[in-house]
Amino acid sequence: MTRRSEFDTDTSIEAAGEASFAGTVTDRWDIAGNPNGGYLLSFAVRGLAATLTKPDPLTLTAHYLRRPDKGPVRVEIEPIRAGRSLATGTARLVQGGSERVRVLATFGDLEAAAGATAVREGPPDLPPPDACLTRGDELSPFPDPPEIFRRLDLRLHPETGWPRGQGTGVAHVEGWVRFADKRPPDVMSLPFFADAFPPAVFELAPAAWVPTIELTVHVRARPAPGWLQGRFQTRHLIGGYLEEDGELWDSTGRLVAQSRQLAMLLT
Amino acid sequence: MTRRSEFDTDTSIEAAGEASFAGTVTDRWDIAGNPNGGYLLSFAVRGLAATLTKPDPLTLTAHYLRRPDKGPVRVEIEPIRAGRSLATGTARLVQGGSERVRVLATFGDLEAAAGATAVREGPPDLPPPDACLTRGDELSPFPDPPEIFRRLDLRLHPETGWPRGQGTGVAHVEGWVRFADKRPPDVMSLPFFADAFPPAVFELAPAAWVPTIELTVHVRARPAPGWLQGRFQTRHLIGGYLEEDGELWDSTGRLVAQSRQLAMLLT
Repeated sequence: MTRRSEFDTDTSIEAAGEASFAGTVTDRWDIAGNPNGGYLLSFAVRGLAATLTKPDPLTLTAHYLRRPDKGPVRVEIEPIRAGRSLATGTARLVQGGSERVRVLATFGDLEAAAGATAVREGPPDLPPPDACLTRGDELSPFPDPPEIFRRLDLRLHPETGWPRGQGTGVAHVEGWVRFADKRPPDVMSLPFFADAFPPAVFELAPAAWVPTIELTVHVRARPAPGWLQGRFQTRHLIGGYLEEDGELWDSTGRLVAQSRQLAMLLT
Repeated sequence: MTRRSEFDTDTSIEAAGEASFAGTVTDRWDIAGNPNGGYLLSFAVRGLAATLTKPDPLTLTAHYLRRPDKGPVRVEIEPIRAGRSLATGTARLVQGGSERVRVLATFGDLEAAAGATAVREGPPDLPPPDACLTRGDELSPFPDPPEIFRRLDLRLHPETGWPRGQGTGVAHVEGWVRFADKRPPDVMSLPFFADAFPPAVFELAPAAWVPTIELTVHVRARPAPGWLQGRFQTRHLIGGYLEEDGELWDSTGRLVAQSRQLAMLLT
């Protein structure tokens, strides 16, 4: 008998009316008392996958509207278009009558992607996971280690500055990541992993909180089992607003997801 | 008397019911018979700006659902949240009862952006506009010069390969751009400019068409009058899907917008 993974358990939804689902936001993916944005997004991904007619979330955009609560969440899907190769819809995450997250997504079938391939950049050149900084106090700027670091096995490049108290001055972080229970990554969990690293801007400036306004994830391939490698960077911090660009590669060295978010630096 | 600019004339909308507007998609911003995606997006930007309570489109995501027609377009806005500093809503572009584009956007006030600034990358190092490739046949892979090139003054870096019949092999293009009638850029037109350059992937592979699935634009600052400088690149073409990342700087060298789109290479 296979035990169900923590991620699958904690993002599970069940049908609750037409194109509507019920789930529960747990406290097990928290950072400083707030559910991680990629964790929340995963409820929308599941609702969309259950409603739209294609298997892979090619592009997802989430706008974070209001602080979420732990407890029941309703996932309301509006299918917009079901085409031959693409299906588009929105998801609303609603708690207590108040919308917390709005998602717009297009799904497709990556197995049918038969066009040309030409890749300019590869994965980071990382030391092995055991030579990297491990999860725990040293990877958290918060007084208590975030709950999410019990669910994730995150290893940051040993030259990452901020865990040692001194940012490098360049908002660029790289590392390995997988679920702590070793559940293999898949297209359902890649949007979560795209928001699972500590903000790259920690290398640049001390921050109390870096709330995401908008997060877009492109899933580019179905990942192989094993570790993911991630690279996240911020090139432009302007008036307190910043973008963070991310890439995730699978254990075969293939790009599997790209992400960009617009966030605010609160000090 | 000031003559109204071509862009303002051709993207004008008028109220037509509650949170609903009417406009007309002209043939004056066409590429090979299809209205430019950034031109279409501009109707949504105007409808959102007229309905939401904030002046600047901080982040806009458009999903292109169906081929648009020239002629009447209805812009239907759903305000989602009006907060203290941010306002979020969706726009639907509808023609003949059929939705063509769905947009999800958050507006804010860039004048109130008082946080830290730290910028890692600057604008391209471009020769002056008159030393660049000018618009016309030489910038078009199509038999007839696209109509949009009568509205735009686009100057590509003289080392751009594909206009001379031989792509450089690196999907990276840089150049200057402004409206042909010299209307100054503003936050309403930056989303248009973010989709106004020929695809960077032309440097890598001959393409019949590069349809956009999804386009996200972040407006990062209000632009100064004058030329914009753009840099657009594709790093990952995988199975025919590609991302294109873009940056736009104003005449003072300040980053004013970033964009990313997911598109398909059709050969």
